[in-house]
Amino acid sequence: MKTDPPRAANGGNGATKCEISASFQHSSPGYLPVSFKIALLGAGRVAAQLAPALARAGHRVVAVWSRQAASARAVADPLGAAALHGPAPDLRRAPAADLYLLAVPDDAAAAVLAAAQWPAGALVAHTSGALPLAVFAARPEVRGAVFYPLQTFSPGRAIDWPQVPLCLEAADADGLAVLQQVAASLSQRVLLVASVPRRQLHVAAVFASNFTNHLLGLADALLTEAQLPADLLTPLVRETVDKALRNPPFQVQTGPAIRHDAATIATHTAALAAHPRWQALYTQLTASIQASAAAPGPGPAEPG
Amino acid sequence: MKTDPPRAANGGNGATKCEISASFQHSSPGYLPVSFKIALLGAGRVAAQLAPALARAGHRVVAVWSRQAASARAVADPLGAAALHGPAPDLRRAPAADLYLLAVPDDAAAAVLAAAQWPAGALVAHTSGALPLAVFAARPEVRGAVFYPLQTFSPGRAIDWPQVPLCLEAADADGLAVLQQVAASLSQRVLLVASVPRRQLHVAAVFASNFTNHLLGLADALLTEAQLPADLLTPLVRETVDKALRNPPFQVQTGPAIRHDAATIATHTAALAAHPRWQALYTQLTASIQASAAAPGPGPAEPG
Repeated sequence: MKTDPPRAANGGNGATKCEISASFQHSSPGYLPVSFKIALLGAGRVAAQLAPALARAGHRVVAVWSRQAASARAVADPLGAAALHGPAPDLRRAPAADLYLLAVPDDAAAAVLAAAQWPAGALVAHTSGALPLAVFAARPEVRGAVFYPLQTFSPGRAIDWPQVPLCLEAADADGLAVLQQVAASLSQRVLLVASVPRRQLHVAAVFASNFTNHLLGLADALLTEAQLPADLLTPLVRETVDKALRNPPFQVQTGPAIRHDAATIATHTAALAAHPRWQALYTQLTASIQASAAAPGPGPAEPG
Repeated sequence: MKTDPPRAANGGNGATKCEISASFQHSSPGYLPVSFKIALLGAGRVAAQLAPALARAGHRVVAVWSRQAASARAVADPLGAAALHGPAPDLRRAPAADLYLLAVPDDAAAAVLAAAQWPAGALVAHTSGALPLAVFAARPEVRGAVFYPLQTFSPGRAIDWPQVPLCLEAADADGLAVLQQVAASLSQRVLLVASVPRRQLHVAAVFASNFTNHLLGLADALLTEAQLPADLLTPLVRETVDKALRNPPFQVQTGPAIRHDAATIATHTAALAAHPRWQALYTQLTASIQASAAAPGPGPAEPG
């Protein structure tokens, strides 16, 4: 989201993060892309998109682990990787890798980390926005790291990897150097983001992605109820989002809430009487819009 | 938003609405586009976009009224229209029009309707999603109608009029015929939508547009706090919205709420402690996602 001049396009270079030029690895003459051996733990939505992208970028996916054999094979076989399965991945019996990427749901990561048998000194990066680097504290025999791709992954949808921000963190400089090279081979947008700002980024992503999808779902449900065409809101949604991505969103807020149009708000609230949960959301989002507009700082530029 | 086969692309043809082919006015041989004389009441965001679009479509904008003389002139002068101003528009002194379009904020519409002096039998259409046709009941000397463009209008942003759904309603068949011809000259998407489903559509639009913009604003504010680049979420937001517009959104819901990932939800809630209002929204939206997934009907197709 683009903002006013005081806020630099790349957000400045505080201690918490810095943006890495994708060309950093081209700095020495005679540069050749580095090919790493990579093992993937997990065979879900993230791993299924990451594995072939890594192979296309010139790396060798040497192993894929999943609880289920069929899931592991589905990701491993097309790449000629070893397929491991079972409750506790024993990576000491798998082909050695320069980097072990843990791509399992956040609520499974701790259990997989605890159950796995790692080669001594293995570089292990999780791919979560929410988990701190400190999740590796219980496994001092590995070098912990974070490789967080800031995107939503769904089966059957192609990912534009060069545009996906990759947020990196590592416990040691050598580990970070490996992550940087792997990341730069996939994406033009590589950043160092420490655990605390990364958690904040993940909360922001939940608002911008998961919650936005839910609002679009509520709108879709309301159209269905009214027997109106399902795609009627498409031009409105596209225009709204495009505008919000090109301006600070609080400054382009429109609608009855920001206008304090009490009559329309009352009409809408009454229309939602059959859906008390959506009605409560309507009320709370309306109050939040009005509170944001009243807050100090740049307010909304609402004409007339 | 596209849905499964049982739901037709044009939503069926219930009593509440029907979709009109943009080509209906071409049905008679020797057809020529009809040019109407149109007066605009209001000179805000909607009128400022509507007036030149009507002129480009071949109509004659004969008058523009606003409370402020400068506002009226800004819209009227480029089109050679009469500029009227003052608290109570006296349309009997303005050039006669086939259609009077009321494009003022919803909370001002009743006052303008009450204050205006109309030529007897004037066809007057408001442009609001929220106001019923019944707002004209107090003015029996005019023929009431609705001409609701389903889009968000902002200064400086070009509107793709052929894609803007125009939702029509009229008290009489002759009035509806005029609206249909004007609408079809602007847009390929013209629908008859009665007051009750139109109000439901407007509530849906508030969720999909105003509230979505607010969520993107919260995400933007969280990035600013973490000193992260303002545009970091852009690929995620574009992918999320594109996916939601091509699938039933409830079926493509992702994130910690739908996974019932209690640990991540607790981490996020704690991270929002400094913003109790956003924290409450996070909790309520999470609960709403979980309730929608649990509801009968097609549930979310969440892999692993």
